[in-house]
Parts: sequence; structure tokens; C-alpha cells
Amino acid sequence: MNLQDTIHAIEPVPEVWRKKAEEYILTLTMPPWALGRILDTAVDLCGIQRTLKPETAKKQIVLFAGDHGVVAQGVAATPQSVTVEMVRNFIRHGAAVNVLGDTVGADVAVVDMGVNADLSKEAAAGQLINEKIGFGTRDISTGPAMTREEAIRSLEAGIRMAEKFSSADILATGEMGIGNTTPSSAIVALLSGHKDDPLCCVDRGAGIPEERVVHKAEIVKRALDVSNPDPEDGVDILAKVGGFEIGGIAGLILGGAMLKKPVFVDGFISTAGALIAMKIAPVSAQYMIFAHGSAERGHVSMMKLLGKKPLLDLGMRLGEGSGAAAAMFLADCAANL
Amino acid sequence: MNLQDTIHAIEPVPEVWRKKAEEYILTLTMPPWALGRILDTAVDLCGIQRTLKPETAKKQIVLFAGDHGVVAQGVAATPQSVTVEMVRNFIRHGAAVNVLGDTVGADVAVVDMGVNADLSKEAAAGQLINEKIGFGTRDISTGPAMTREEAIRSLEAGIRMAEKFSSADILATGEMGIGNTTPSSAIVALLSGHKDDPLCCVDRGAGIPEERVVHKAEIVKRALDVSNPDPEDGVDILAKVGGFEIGGIAGLILGGAMLKKPVFVDGFISTAGALIAMKIAPVSAQYMIFAHGSAERGHVSMMKLLGKKPLLDLGMRLGEGSGAAAAMFLADCAANL
Repeated sequence: MNLQDTIHAIEPVPEVWRKKAEEYILTLTMPPWALGRILDTAVDLCGIQRTLKPETAKKQIVLFAGDHGVVAQGVAATPQSVTVEMVRNFIRHGAAVNVLGDTVGADVAVVDMGVNADLSKEAAAGQLINEKIGFGTRDISTGPAMTREEAIRSLEAGIRMAEKFSSADILATGEMGIGNTTPSSAIVALLSGHKDDPLCCVDRGAGIPEERVVHKAEIVKRALDVSNPDPEDGVDILAKVGGFEIGGIAGLILGGAMLKKPVFVDGFISTAGALIAMKIAPVSAQYMIFAHGSAERGHVSMMKLLGKKPLLDLGMRLGEGSGAAAAMFLADCAANL
Repeated sequence: MNLQDTIHAIEPVPEVWRKKAEEYILTLTMPPWALGRILDTAVDLCGIQRTLKPETAKKQIVLFAGDHGVVAQGVAATPQSVTVEMVRNFIRHGAAVNVLGDTVGADVAVVDMGVNADLSKEAAAGQLINEKIGFGTRDISTGPAMTREEAIRSLEAGIRMAEKFSSADILATGEMGIGNTTPSSAIVALLSGHKDDPLCCVDRGAGIPEERVVHKAEIVKRALDVSNPDPEDGVDILAKVGGFEIGGIAGLILGGAMLKKPVFVDGFISTAGALIAMKIAPVSAQYMIFAHGSAERGHVSMMKLLGKKPLLDLGMRLGEGSGAAAAMFLADCAANL
């Protein structure tokens, strides 16, 4: 479905099902709300799926990969080629998200949104899904990451993924893209009002030294200055300071919301995608479940903007969907109760 | 094995295996320690099991039940008979810990340490394990909970459980006993130096009103005054202000440590047992993995005393072993990595 139709098709989570779930839980033999966040999650699942018997057995992690022109500015800890290396690692089932996915019983699909490498052979072999929009975004420190039309295409690719995996009970986001904490920091800096002093939203990514963080913050400030995205227009933000995989994530959330699926949102970059989705369709936030608190400091501001609290706090900062995988186990706990 | 021999048989976790695990993890394709606490847990498991391939498949929750004379002082939210009702609920597989145990793939065994009801029929039918030391402890606000000899018997019952379930890869504690947050608060108040002002270690248990918490703190103070336990003698603390199930938990931890098994420690009451175990054999703390931060406020002081940080923070305050069950999933994640 296209973006506009998807936005219009998203319905709010009916309060009545959340209420019914709360009432049912209070009849269980335990002190009131003694299982805390597991019960919160149960209410979320019941509301989103409009049932007292939420299903969580079929879990699909959709891992969006893309590259970023801004790596030219020295914002990343590793060379850009690590993106495609990691994509090959996912395909070989050799990454942490594969292991955690297996552990929780989730399938992992890899989507090429914009990796700076030719992956047509892997796509032809059915090892990954080809939604490539370009060979990496343009450098956001010198101009927009992509055109508005490309931003919409990336969102619609994500929506397509939600439709493709519509037999799943719960969806989860994952991502891979060297340099993608920089656009994510730009998104949260803009939306939290730190356009001019973004340092509070910038952190070490995959491990740059502390002194490079200041440089990275300057790049974020420059990106926001040069393109001046409209903070009320999610598509504009995505186009100007986002990324192809961030668009895919936002689209998956919008599509998931349209299809009444809970979407487990992984760490910092995925949450940047969630912010884009919320800006495009605020009600989609009701379908988001935040897996874990990222070690990236900007994540706290993201949670405030979304009015949410992550389930786990394990000091994770890998991305890939690893946190979403771990958190989905709590969905099983919640559903089984 | 008896208590003294068990204490002597506990060996420290060899630093060399923890080091090897750390080195191995740093070779994985990810930014350094990007999976945070999951990797900490992996190092713990490797060290405790002396391997780079920790096993977690076979999980055993041992749920110790006992009653408490101190309920006569109005410290509990529910009548004492709820202990035996919940024990029957565990046997019928109808409680939260059963559901969560199934979800994570853990067996649940129920041990009658001192329930104030005749459970000999259930024991004869093999539905629970009979280690009954008495029909509830004596009221700690008027004198010791039990004799020193009974305290040692409760510890040795716990050690027996570790031996009985020695084929398990990981052990976990659980408990049921109306009134047992009161002795747990007494233990942490004594050890954290709040013998005379225990309010900071006392909370609402299964849901007493805020004003009753003050009364409960007075009862804790009275218990510590009347028996004056020696803070350096774990057996004395257990005898004077503990409980039969708390002794069982401490014994399971000591036995687990002797057998080189990781022991997942559930919430507030289980951690009181962990404090007793640490006082009896400090090195046993190396075998403890703390499942979750309890909503009981004294739990923070407990963690400080033990120098540990819980894995999950989900606002749980049920006990039963429910938190340990949820946390053991992270052990699977850690081991599979």
C-alpha cells in the first residue's frame, strides 16, 4: 500500500481491549501488578491485537541495511565496507542477531535498502530482499541525504515488508549501516530542540574516541543547518538528515500499525525510525514496544519524545535487532500469562 | 553433604576462565561489549562452569515454601493460609512461575520447608518435596524464629536440593511464604547497619497500605532488638530473624556453588537468602546471578551489600521465582553467543 493510504488506514488501539486486559490481569492470583512491565506488555499486546489471548509465537525481525555518505566526515569507528561485510555475516547466519533470533524463535530477514555494494547476486539467490534505493545516502553535512521522493520510496519499502510478513504475530526492527548513529542523532537533536547544541544527542556509536564525539556533534549541527528540515514533517526530516534504512524502519512500523501488529523497536537507530513514523502518523506510536535502553545518550531524549519506557536496560549498543530479539521473550511471557 | 563440608568444598570461580571468556568475546564481530549485560552474563557462566561453551539448556527452579509466626503482628497483606493455597496452585501448575517456567523451558520443583499445613499427602504423591522443619517459624518479634539446629537443618535441606538437581545446568531460586518480606527486611536492615532505623529496608510486601509499613518497620526493629543476631554469623541471623524457606534458598546457593552451578537469584526474599549464604561462605557470591531489581525498596541495599547489579528491572514484586525465570532467558542468549 502506498504511504498516504497506509497513514489513513492506521486505527488507534481501542482502549476497551486494554481495559479488558487490565481487568483480566487483576483477576489473576497475585498481588496487584506484581509482574510489573511484563503485565504492561501484556496489556499492550491485548490492545494492539484486540484480544485477551495475544499471539506471539511467530516473530519476524526485519533488518534494514543502508550506507551513509556522511562517513566521509570521519564520524564512524569503522570503514563503510563493514556494512556489506555484516550483511554477508547476517546471510551466513553468523551475527549476534542470528543467535539471539534463534534463541527467542524469531526469523530474521535482511533488506538491502541502500548498501554501497552490489548485492544483486545475494538478492537473486533469495538470501536478502532487494529494495535498494541507492548506493548509500548523500553526505548530510553538505546537503539532503536523499530526495523527498526517495524518502517516500524508502517508507513504502518498509510498508511492503510489513505486508510481506503479515503472517507474523509480532514484528521487530533491526538495522545495519556504518555511520547511522549520525543521522539518528540529527533526528533526535532536531525534534528535542537541540538543533544548535546537539552534543547531548551524540555519542560514541560503534566506539569512536570521546574527542571525536565533539566533531560528530559539529557534523550533526552542520547537517541541520545546511538542510533545515521542517520538524513537523517526518518525510522532510527523513529526506534531509535520515537514511534509507531509517526510512525502511519507519515504514515497517507504519505498515505494522496498519496491520494491527505490535512492532518491537530495537535501539538508537530504530528509535530514530520510530520518531519519523510518529511524526508521519502519531497514532502509530501506540503499536511500538521499545525493546531496550540504548547506551547511546540521545536515546533518553528519544524515549521522552515518544513518551515511552524501554523494557530492558542491559547496556546494549549493537543494533542489528539484537535488543528487540531479547525483549520479544518478554512478549512470550506476557502472552502466556 | 553437611553444611561444614559444603562450605569447605566451595572453590572460587577461577579468574582464568573469566579472562578466556572475555578474550573470546572480544574476537566476535561487534563493537567492544556491544551486548552489555548479556556479555557480562556470558563471562559469569563461563567462569562458573569453567568452559567457553556454557550450558544452559537444563534449568531448574527450586521453590521453597514456609510460613512465618510474625504474621500474628499484622505485617502481611493476606492471611497465612494463602501460603498453602499458592503451594497447591504451584502443584496444579496454575501460578505465574509455572507459566514463565514453561516459557523459558525450566522445571519447577516445590519444597515444603515449613508450611503451616499438612502436606504429607502431596509429598507422598510426589507433587512436592518434603523437607518440613516445622509448621511455620516462631514470631520473630518475640524471640528467635527457630533454633540454631533448625537453621542448620534448613540450610542442609537446601544443599540437598542442589545435589538432587545436580543434572541441571543452571539453578534458580523461588519462594512462597506469607509474611516473608518481614524477616527479609530484618536481615538487610541488620547487615546494612539500619538495625535501629529499619524503615528504609521495609516496604509494602504483597500490598499492605503505606501506613502499615511503619508498623512493619517497628516489628522489624523489635525482632532485631529482642534476639540481637550477630551480624557476622549467617546461621545466627537465619535462626533469629530468618525463615525456613530463606534457609532453603541460602542452602541451594551454597550447594550450587559447591557443585559449580550458576544460581539465578529471584527477588527480595531470595536475595535475603543470598545474603545469608554470603555471610556463611563469602565466595558463594561468585555463583549468584541476580535476576531482577525488586520493587521492594530494601532490595537496593541488598545489591550494595552483595556488590551486584540485577539483570532485569521490570518492576516485579511477585517472588515465586518469576523474575529468575524471565532472567534465565538471558542466560540462553549469553550461552548461545
